[in-house]
Amino acid sequence: MSYWDVDKIKYVGTGNKKSGLGFQYYNADEMIGGKKMRDWLRFAVAYWHTFDQRLVDPFGDGTAIRPYDKYTDPMDQALAKVDAAFEFYDKLGVDFLCFHDRDLAPEGDTLRETNKNLDKVVDKIVENQKTSGMKVLWNTSNLFTNPRFVAGAGTSPYADIFAYSAAQLKHSLEIGKRVGSENYVFWGGREGYESLWNTDMKREQEHAAKLFHMAKDYANEIGFDAQMLLEPKPKEPTTHQYDFDAATTIAFMKEYGLDKDFKLNLEGNHANLAGHTYQHEIRVAREAGLLGSLDANQGDKLIGWDIDEYPSNLYETTAAMTEVVENGSIGPRGGLNFDAKPRRSSFEPDDLFYGHIVGMDSFAAGLRVAVAMKQDGVLDNLVKDRYSSYDSGIGAEIEAGKATMKELEDYSLDKTQKELRDATHSDHLEEIKDTINHYIIQTLK
Amino acid sequence: MSYWDVDKIKYVGTGNKKSGLGFQYYNADEMIGGKKMRDWLRFAVAYWHTFDQRLVDPFGDGTAIRPYDKYTDPMDQALAKVDAAFEFYDKLGVDFLCFHDRDLAPEGDTLRETNKNLDKVVDKIVENQKTSGMKVLWNTSNLFTNPRFVAGAGTSPYADIFAYSAAQLKHSLEIGKRVGSENYVFWGGREGYESLWNTDMKREQEHAAKLFHMAKDYANEIGFDAQMLLEPKPKEPTTHQYDFDAATTIAFMKEYGLDKDFKLNLEGNHANLAGHTYQHEIRVAREAGLLGSLDANQGDKLIGWDIDEYPSNLYETTAAMTEVVENGSIGPRGGLNFDAKPRRSSFEPDDLFYGHIVGMDSFAAGLRVAVAMKQDGVLDNLVKDRYSSYDSGIGAEIEAGKATMKELEDYSLDKTQKELRDATHSDHLEEIKDTINHYIIQTLK
Amino acid sequence: MSYWDVDKIKYVGTGNKKSGLGFQYYNADEMIGGKKMRDWLRFAVAYWHTFDQRLVDPFGDGTAIRPYDKYTDPMDQALAKVDAAFEFYDKLGVDFLCFHDRDLAPEGDTLRETNKNLDKVVDKIVENQKTSGMKVLWNTSNLFTNPRFVAGAGTSPYADIFAYSAAQLKHSLEIGKRVGSENYVFWGGREGYESLWNTDMKREQEHAAKLFHMAKDYANEIGFDAQMLLEPKPKEPTTHQYDFDAATTIAFMKEYGLDKDFKLNLEGNHANLAGHTYQHEIRVAREAGLLGSLDANQGDKLIGWDIDEYPSNLYETTAAMTEVVENGSIGPRGGLNFDAKPRRSSFEPDDLFYGHIVGMDSFAAGLRVAVAMKQDGVLDNLVKDRYSSYDSGIGAEIEAGKATMKELEDYSLDKTQKELRDATHSDHLEEIKDTINHYIIQTLK
Amino acid sequence: MSYWDVDKIKYVGTGNKKSGLGFQYYNADEMIGGKKMRDWLRFAVAYWHTFDQRLVDPFGDGTAIRPYDKYTDPMDQALAKVDAAFEFYDKLGVDFLCFHDRDLAPEGDTLRETNKNLDKVVDKIVENQKTSGMKVLWNTSNLFTNPRFVAGAGTSPYADIFAYSAAQLKHSLEIGKRVGSENYVFWGGREGYESLWNTDMKREQEHAAKLFHMAKDYANEIGFDAQMLLEPKPKEPTTHQYDFDAATTIAFMKEYGLDKDFKLNLEGNHANLAGHTYQHEIRVAREAGLLGSLDANQGDKLIGWDIDEYPSNLYETTAAMTEVVENGSIGPRGGLNFDAKPRRSSFEPDDLFYGHIVGMDSFAAGLRVAVAMKQDGVLDNLVKDRYSSYDSGIGAEIEAGKATMKELEDYSLDKTQKELRDATHSDHLEEIKDTINHYIIQTLK
Repeated sequence: MSYWDVDKIKYVGTGNKKSGLGFQYYNADEMIGGKKMRDWLRFAVAYWHTFDQRLVDPFGDGTAIRPYDKYTDPMDQALAKVDAAFEFYDKLGVDFLCFHDRDLAPEGDTLRETNKNLDKVVDKIVENQKTSGMKVLWNTSNLFTNPRFVAGAGTSPYADIFAYSAAQLKHSLEIGKRVGSENYVFWGGREGYESLWNTDMKREQEHAAKLFHMAKDYANEIGFDAQMLLEPKPKEPTTHQYDFDAATTIAFMKEYGLDKDFKLNLEGNHANLAGHTYQHEIRVAREAGLLGSLDANQGDKLIGWDIDEYPSNLYETTAAMTEVVENGSIGPRGGLNFDAKPRRSSFEPDDLFYGHIVGMDSFAAGLRVAVAMKQDGVLDNLVKDRYSSYDSGIGAEIEAGKATMKELEDYSLDKTQKELRDATHSDHLEEIKDTINHYIIQTLK
Repeated sequence: MSYWDVDKIKYVGTGNKKSGLGFQYYNADEMIGGKKMRDWLRFAVAYWHTFDQRLVDPFGDGTAIRPYDKYTDPMDQALAKVDAAFEFYDKLGVDFLCFHDRDLAPEGDTLRETNKNLDKVVDKIVENQKTSGMKVLWNTSNLFTNPRFVAGAGTSPYADIFAYSAAQLKHSLEIGKRVGSENYVFWGGREGYESLWNTDMKREQEHAAKLFHMAKDYANEIGFDAQMLLEPKPKEPTTHQYDFDAATTIAFMKEYGLDKDFKLNLEGNHANLAGHTYQHEIRVAREAGLLGSLDANQGDKLIGWDIDEYPSNLYETTAAMTEVVENGSIGPRGGLNFDAKPRRSSFEPDDLFYGHIVGMDSFAAGLRVAVAMKQDGVLDNLVKDRYSSYDSGIGAEIEAGKATMKELEDYSLDKTQKELRDATHSDHLEEIKDTINHYIIQTLK
Repeated sequence: MSYWDVDKIKYVGTGNKKSGLGFQYYNADEMIGGKKMRDWLRFAVAYWHTFDQRLVDPFGDGTAIRPYDKYTDPMDQALAKVDAAFEFYDKLGVDFLCFHDRDLAPEGDTLRETNKNLDKVVDKIVENQKTSGMKVLWNTSNLFTNPRFVAGAGTSPYADIFAYSAAQLKHSLEIGKRVGSENYVFWGGREGYESLWNTDMKREQEHAAKLFHMAKDYANEIGFDAQMLLEPKPKEPTTHQYDFDAATTIAFMKEYGLDKDFKLNLEGNHANLAGHTYQHEIRVAREAGLLGSLDANQGDKLIGWDIDEYPSNLYETTAAMTEVVENGSIGPRGGLNFDAKPRRSSFEPDDLFYGHIVGMDSFAAGLRVAVAMKQDGVLDNLVKDRYSSYDSGIGAEIEAGKATMKELEDYSLDKTQKELRDATHSDHLEEIKDTINHYIIQTLK
Repeated sequence: MSYWDVDKIKYVGTGNKKSGLGFQYYNADEMIGGKKMRDWLRFAVAYWHTFDQRLVDPFGDGTAIRPYDKYTDPMDQALAKVDAAFEFYDKLGVDFLCFHDRDLAPEGDTLRETNKNLDKVVDKIVENQKTSGMKVLWNTSNLFTNPRFVAGAGTSPYADIFAYSAAQLKHSLEIGKRVGSENYVFWGGREGYESLWNTDMKREQEHAAKLFHMAKDYANEIGFDAQMLLEPKPKEPTTHQYDFDAATTIAFMKEYGLDKDFKLNLEGNHANLAGHTYQHEIRVAREAGLLGSLDANQGDKLIGWDIDEYPSNLYETTAAMTEVVENGSIGPRGGLNFDAKPRRSSFEPDDLFYGHIVGMDSFAAGLRVAVAMKQDGVLDNLVKDRYSSYDSGIGAEIEAGKATMKELEDYSLDKTQKELRDATHSDHLEEIKDTINHYIIQTLK
């Protein structure tokens, strides 16, 4: 039986389509910059957005039409969804999936019952993995939807909720091991505050750190060697979430000794909500040696909430992939997970394909542009040249830590205003933007 | 003598450059969509940003290096600047300029003295116009920089300042006539409030309307038949400016009977500061029949103040030009004025050329993409199809005003949820975005 | 039987409580500024937020605990909710309620069935009104939640959806007449666009205007003489809603001849999302003679979505009530409807009382402060003095339309920079803020 | 001779004024919460905003009228300004001042000349300190205004500019020692980027860290034992500044080993620009043990740039002082520096007094409210109670690190949904807001 009424999506190149079903830029096995595109990009489909999301919004009921809607029993639907999902992966041509525990199966009245439901679905996933070769980029635990997490999970003021969270997490780690997850993600959607008036932020953060350590220790204990990842988001649903952005999360990781075992999973829309570009967040993580994996989506910077659009902006994908190319890879085990959903008005099954296609093509296009710029040394030369005054003379002495303030005073005391102005140079940003446009068009034509 | 150490900028096409001096997309006399590119785009250079702007910011002194900096006497510099400007227009290959009165010449201690300074510079502009054929897209009056305008000009609580503003404006209109301005612009940078506690908004708006009427009447009186334009901006420098955005300004124009004689001059960065896209603002004006002219620049939506970057984002220029193509022109006398400046770090003379080149090329590229989409009917068909249920049957009756509520109730009362859902369709927004990407790359390659 | 485990809320004054159940400022029958507080404020409770809202958010299931949760049959619950609601009104001591049609009863498969469900509940409301004397400030129709409204109601591209919307609206107007609504509100939560690429904005707005006219005509036909109100909100759920803010909505009303029969219903959080203060929006409507009614809530300006908090910020309530006092009333039939809900973390029944109490007290406090400032003439004198140069001399001539540009030129031509500076005055905004603080504390102590 | 035409500002209490010159809440020597108000608050006046700021904005020339405007020679004016400043401190009744090196004296053509100018003015400051007893809360170096700092100082890509910055800083540290500064502040207004395309962020941050270490080492060398402080601001003037907010700056300090010797100086308006409340930033620093000092001002959250208003919002000052009271002090050597200026429309000399008065009174009021809440244990009890489940039982075991995941699983596995829901409690945020209002009014009456 087939769930999706489309053929396997093929690479058709740029000349052969105007839109629709077919990749213009993503050619999985094409070598580029020394690697196959599939190995640079390691695309993953997110279970929650692609298969579970009903396309609700705060003022509207779900509009989604999905091929497994006919199953009314929750477990029947959950099991049918596994087959539909694996058919989707195959037709789309991705190698990875991602999921929360709660995406897969309905909750029971107790964790014991919930785990039982979950295990049945995981059995089916494992079975499908065997036949398909599909891998799990990461799994995670939903510690935010159920009302019990109203005030957080690891940071809940209620010890029983912390205890439950640890218990739920334990099972999720065990599942991670079963499905062979390459990473394990923590998104702290409730780990923050509504108001500072009644919040002991420090105690909450200590608790969160404790839960992270506990999870890592348990993963070690059971031989689940996934890379642990924290995913920043500044606000929504809460007023403030502790993992505000990459830098804030790094501060937290350093404070609580988590920076050895944890890295970051970064998302474009979350970056925007924190006032940053996606590129900025990736740069921060990359330079700190903490880039773990990426969530692929885009926001609308005029909109103040998370919209998780499929990426289509070639400037943003080019910028993101420039960081990735510079890094050599997204990260040892990183990939691009589509934490993206159709608009509520794109509610038909085909829209799931269109969305992933524009997303995959946009990142593949970004990769092509980034590699072209890297191979031509465009940005590298620019940067090398810009900082060259530190490569010798006084600059080299400064970098080597040999110059004292006294020496620098002697060096500078009689320099005129004009001499100092002449030591600076225009950075010709307008020309750089022209160059980026040129590379995008000429690489992608 | 030459002020600018560059050759005349030529169209070199897409294959022949990576960046720098040369147009890839702007080919002034090329016919496209039934008109020459120069007639679609009617580019203008803004005196204030290109020749006067010292590249200051609230925390930094001006960095600009300009070829007329050697003139220390203000009038000498003002006159030299005219020659430098006309050489710039010629080398860049634009047909229009724009200016405020205060851009051209220094103020004296009285308006009489100020006008005298100004007239000398205008004489020289007129002279240069004769030899060059350069036209003035619009001129305007700076009623915001001098401390006397601290609380507004037309909306100043101080009658003497209103009187002075009218007097200054009178001379500016006379200059408009002399230089043959095709439009006359009002940007109300101080026409707003710092605080509502001490503001009589209605009285202020009545005063502003009076000044606009006075200006139009006087223009008629002297036979200056420019199109009058209001330019919205929501905030900065004041807390709130009355001409917040296109729709707000239209409401004001309708309230005070200005919608017959005035149209709108719209800017991309101002649109963003009001929470809108540039395309949105143009659409609002276009559909109201009030699109007058455009200021070409771009903002950074993560930044909360006016940065007036040269446009380089091909999505934004494509969207803007799509509205223009739909409209048949920017407006009977409209053009694209570069209300744009280099970054403070792009301070060399060449950067003025790079900036305008990326700006002109980006709008020329946008025009090419918009015309291609129009000719293929891509968006037109999409829209036609989407609303087709109003072209016949019940929809046509609704549009014709024939359907009563009672009839519509009879029509709807027994339709099932499913029947109603089936009357709606996915709008496939993700596919549309893929199509836009495709058109950009394939048209511009 | 009692649903709410609290006593009737009483006025206790400022000395007798620190927090909790009891009004410090709202003393319904106290005369202030010539009217009873209840007549100035005309508080209404919103059915949807107070009784229906489950306290969901985009990442979390509902947390609310409500006294009618035990009823599992939707109609049983709907009917129990009516009793619970009227007990709540009585205990809180408000005179008005507001509701959408869909708040009251579950939908059936057809409008006929839906109306049948609805009528049963309305019967019970009418019955309760008789015994309680409760009035309906306004009712409205939910034309946004059901998936059929995915692309709008009046602005839907699908004629069948327009037809259905008109039919649903017809019944809602009939209900308005039955319950004696003083106003009828239209909030266009889906009347906007996701993307301009596929949107015929003009055609959509014409359709919307048609629906508004149809509604007004039908109301006249059945003798339902409510004041019609449009409620602006800039964005969320859609990318852009046509009724962006007060000024935009006024432009629309003028364009389509709706400004005679319609006024505005304004909300604080919506104002903020449009980049405005609540006071600004009220001022705009007031000065246009279009202030109809108010939704009482507050946003968090650091948060980019609608949070609909109960108002507690005394600066904002003081500012809003200053406009109301200036206007003589909220509007001939206006009131303050609490379009406000508890935080998701305030999920117990009592929180509904706490929320309304802090909201009612904050507006009552704002009223007290505004009246005190009005009686002392604080702001009036400030404003009168500030614009006094227009009360005689050249200013009076300007206002009378007697001064020509030429005359103003003569008047101004030889005034020196200093003379002009001296014509302006500091507005001492810092002192004004000190004064506002003083009035808040001294009035409310 | 007197510069300021006002009498010494006195404490008049709440009953005796409506506004204007006189403190309602700041009573310097009154004991509150175990300390004098002056010792809690340690108010400082900022030289740059109070004496140097001409009230320019990006679209307007300076409006300020200042008593030393008559001096046209820059050094004459600089020296007169010192006397005017000390008279101002005395009349206002503050104990501290703050300044940048460049606030005090004009630059010469070389650093040698500049230092010479500066030293003359510092001599006069030291002299005035002796007679007045005025202390310096902190001094700092302006490494951002001059065009040479166009691309940063410590992070400049040009080694000569780094060298110059170090030299300028050296002299500034020596001045700090002479005037006895209790702290030394670094605000990195140019230490960031315009664009990531041409920026080596890591190399720039390494340079910045090197400069900070150099400064601390030199301070130690000369026996200048001020507390070193970094001041975060997210953007403006640059697109992104490295010291984005408190958490980001802490991450940087930890990465480069600066967290032992440096603390944070935090500002309200900067907090808002980063998407945070002032209270949030203070909390983050306080809990990290890195709260150094505070800049007192307020932003307008609907405005996207730094407006540096005098603080007047009692909610914000109460929140800030609540953190301070909890901390026992602002910091061992911290104070409240008014990094605040009048609006451009408040341009008269008196406005400087009004501004500081409303600012000092607002913080003094906030202190009074915070102490009252502390003494009553209002928030402390709330928080203690909220987290009490961690004080014993399973919670205590979790905190002690004794509970394993396995144990927590056993503890949780059979708990029902209802049992877990019952373990959580409403946090009654609406009641808390009512309580805050109550405390503000009742404490300040």
